[in-house]
Amino acid sequence: MNIAIMGYGVVGSGVAEVLKKNHDHIVQKSMQPSLELTRILDLRDFPGDENEKLFTKDFNDILNDETIGIVVETMGGLHPAYDFVLACLQAGKSVVTSNKELVAEKGYELLKVAEENNLNFLFEASVGGGIPIIRPISQCLAANEIDEIAGILNGTTNFILTKMIHEGMSFDDALKLAQQLGYAERNPAADVEGMDTCRKICILASLCFGNHVYPNEVYTEGITKLTLADVKYAQAWGGVIKLIGRATRYGDGKISAMVTPAFIQAHSQLAGVDDVFNAILVRGDAIGDVVFYGRGAGKLPTASAVVADVIDCAKHTQRRKNFGWENCIPNYVVSYRDIKCPFFVRVVSCDPAKAWAAAEKHFGEIKRLTYDGAPQDEIGFITPMMTQREFDEKAAVSGLTIGSMIRVTDY
Amino acid sequence: MNIAIMGYGVVGSGVAEVLKKNHDHIVQKSMQPSLELTRILDLRDFPGDENEKLFTKDFNDILNDETIGIVVETMGGLHPAYDFVLACLQAGKSVVTSNKELVAEKGYELLKVAEENNLNFLFEASVGGGIPIIRPISQCLAANEIDEIAGILNGTTNFILTKMIHEGMSFDDALKLAQQLGYAERNPAADVEGMDTCRKICILASLCFGNHVYPNEVYTEGITKLTLADVKYAQAWGGVIKLIGRATRYGDGKISAMVTPAFIQAHSQLAGVDDVFNAILVRGDAIGDVVFYGRGAGKLPTASAVVADVIDCAKHTQRRKNFGWENCIPNYVVSYRDIKCPFFVRVVSCDPAKAWAAAEKHFGEIKRLTYDGAPQDEIGFITPMMTQREFDEKAAVSGLTIGSMIRVTDY
Repeated sequence: MNIAIMGYGVVGSGVAEVLKKNHDHIVQKSMQPSLELTRILDLRDFPGDENEKLFTKDFNDILNDETIGIVVETMGGLHPAYDFVLACLQAGKSVVTSNKELVAEKGYELLKVAEENNLNFLFEASVGGGIPIIRPISQCLAANEIDEIAGILNGTTNFILTKMIHEGMSFDDALKLAQQLGYAERNPAADVEGMDTCRKICILASLCFGNHVYPNEVYTEGITKLTLADVKYAQAWGGVIKLIGRATRYGDGKISAMVTPAFIQAHSQLAGVDDVFNAILVRGDAIGDVVFYGRGAGKLPTASAVVADVIDCAKHTQRRKNFGWENCIPNYVVSYRDIKCPFFVRVVSCDPAKAWAAAEKHFGEIKRLTYDGAPQDEIGFITPMMTQREFDEKAAVSGLTIGSMIRVTDY
Repeated sequence: MNIAIMGYGVVGSGVAEVLKKNHDHIVQKSMQPSLELTRILDLRDFPGDENEKLFTKDFNDILNDETIGIVVETMGGLHPAYDFVLACLQAGKSVVTSNKELVAEKGYELLKVAEENNLNFLFEASVGGGIPIIRPISQCLAANEIDEIAGILNGTTNFILTKMIHEGMSFDDALKLAQQLGYAERNPAADVEGMDTCRKICILASLCFGNHVYPNEVYTEGITKLTLADVKYAQAWGGVIKLIGRATRYGDGKISAMVTPAFIQAHSQLAGVDDVFNAILVRGDAIGDVVFYGRGAGKLPTASAVVADVIDCAKHTQRRKNFGWENCIPNYVVSYRDIKCPFFVRVVSCDPAKAWAAAEKHFGEIKRLTYDGAPQDEIGFITPMMTQREFDEKAAVSGLTIGSMIRVTDY
C-alpha cells in the first residue's frame, strides 16, 4: 500500500522522516506487505531534498493514483485542504490529518463521507500534537460518561505564561522571546487570542459529548490582557494562571464550552505543565480524573501521531471507526454567561477601604488576596460562585473599576 | 452478545455496575444489537445482590454457554484464573482481564492462543487501573521506537510515600493508616515489597520492547527500608522519593528492567503524583516524553478500563489485536548490577570529616547533601554515574557504613 503527503511543511516533512526512520517497525505494525511514501504534494520546490523525486504540484497525481490508499493532509487551513480531503475520501482513499481547523469546522461532514465510503478519517495529531488523546477518548474511556474535558492545548501561550509566572517577564517580552525561539509566529494572533485552543476544544467536545461543536459557538478569550499583577494574585491565591480550553456536560443534553485564562490550583496536575508542553484532563463518571501530558506541537511528536494513524488505516483498510460524532444540534452550547464559577477580580484606581466595602456589599463573601509590592490603589479578591451574567450585574452597580476578571477552576 | 464475569470481588462487581449504569451508551459503542451480562462465577454467595439470579459456582455454566462471547476475568491470582481463561479462549470466547499476575506470567502464551483462535485477549485494566496505557502504547505510539517506560504503578506504596514526604510520618505509621483506609491489605507484602509494581512493569516492558519479560527476571526492591532521613535528603537534593518501575532499551536487542525506590526531580511530572494516584512516563524517539496520570486502582476506574476492553471485543468479534508481544529470549534482561546511574548514599555511624574524605577518595566527584536536623554521625551525597557493580566495589573498599543507597533518575 502507498502513502501520499499533502503539504511538506514542518509536520509533513516530519511524517516523511518518521516513515523513513522507523520504516521496518512501521510496516510490521501495519500488517501490510509494504507501506511506502510515493507522492508529496507541495507548490514549493525543495531542490536537493531527499524526497525530491516524489514531489508534484498537481493534486490529481495523488487523486488518480490507485496505488495510493492513504493520504496524509498536513497543509493546514481550510481551503484547499477541505476540498482535497473530500475528493480523496470520495475516491476511496483513507485520510489522516493534523489540521485542527479542518477537523473543528468539517469533522462531522468528513467523518460521514468516510463512513459512507467505508474508509477511515483519522485526526489524532489535530489535538495535543503527539499526545495520545483522540483514541483514548473514543476507545479507552468508552465505558465512561465523560463529564468534563479541560486542557492546556496551546504550547505558545503556555510558554509565554510560564515566562510570566516563573521569571516575571511581561507579556510583550515573553511573546518576543517566543518569536525569537520559533515558538510563536510573526502574527501570533491565532495562538495568543485563543483561536487555536478554541479549535482543539471544539474537536474534544464533539468527541466527548457526541455532537459537533463549531468554533463560533465557543466563547474565546486569549491571554493578551493578562498582567504580572494577575500572575502574582494567582500565586497569592495558591495557584497559577493557565489558558484553558474546557467543555462540560451541562444537563438537559446541553454542554458548556469556552476558552479563557483561568486560575488553577498549585497541586493540580495542570499547574505544573510548563513551557511548550500540553496536558489534557478528562473527567469520567467511572474513571475520575485522567491526565495526558506531553509535547503538544513540534515536528516529530506531531508526525508520530500522524504515522500512528497511518498505521491504523493500513491495518483497517475496509473499516471506519465509530467516533460517535454526530451532527450539531441547535442551542447545544449554553452561553458562557450562564456558567457558574468563582471569579478573581482585580479592582484598580481605587481607595482600598472603600473598594473592600463595595466589594463585600455587592459580591458577598469574598476571599481577599494580597501580595508584596501590590499597588496601593488596587485590591484583589475571589467572588463566590456565580454566573457571569450575575457578575456583570453586580460589577455594574458596585461602581468598582475592574482591571481584570478571571475564572477560577476546581482542578 | 452475552458477557460473563468470573470473580465478583471489588473489580468484578464494579464491572457489573458500569455495564448496568452506562448500559445504553455501551451497547451503542459496541455496535452490537445487545450486550448483556448473563452469568457471574463466584464460589461465594451474595444473597440479596441485584445480580443474584446470574450467579453460578460451576465454571462449565460459562464455558458451555454458546451465547457468551466475552468473558471477564477478575478473580486475580494465577490458578484457576489461568486455566479458566485458557479454556475460554479455546472454546472461542474472547477474554478481558484485570489480572496483572496472569498477564505478567502468561501474557505471551494467552495472546498466542487468542491469535490461533482469531479472538481477543485484552488487559487494559492490568496496569494503571483505569488509566489508558496499554492501547496508547500499542496503537498511538506505534510510530515510535520506545526508549524507556517508567512509572508510579502502585497506589498503596505511593500513598505511604506521600505521607512520609508531606507529613513526616514514619513508614510504619503510614502503612497503618493505609490499612485503616482500606488502601493496603492486612498482608501488604505484594505492595510494599514491590511485587505488584514488578508485574506491571513486566507487562509494559513486554509491550514496549516486544519480548515477554517475566517477573523473576526483574530486580525488585520495595519501600520497607526507606527512612524519613532518606526523604529529607531527597528534598535537600531537590526532589522526592518514589517507587518506580522502569524498563529501558539497552542496545544489542537487550533491555533493562527493575523496580526500586528512586530520587525524582521536583519538576518532573512524576514528582507531583501523590496519594493513590499512578502515572506512567513513556519516552519515544519521535514523541519525546508522554505522561499518563490517573487513579491506578479502585472499583470504578478499573472497571471502566475492563468495560472499554469488553466494548472493543464486541466491536471486533473475529479479530485479534497485534500487540507485537513475542516469546521471551535468553539473556534479554541485562543484570541490574550493570545499569549505570548516579546513587544517593547515606553513610551512618561515622565521623563526618573522615567519611567525607573516604567518600571523595573512593566515589570521586560527589555532590554533598545536608538538611536541618540531620544526625551528627551521618552524611549524605550523590555519586557520579556508575553501575551498581562498580558502586559495590567502591563501597566495600571505602570502609563506610552505608545506611541507604537509592538510585537517582534523570526524569
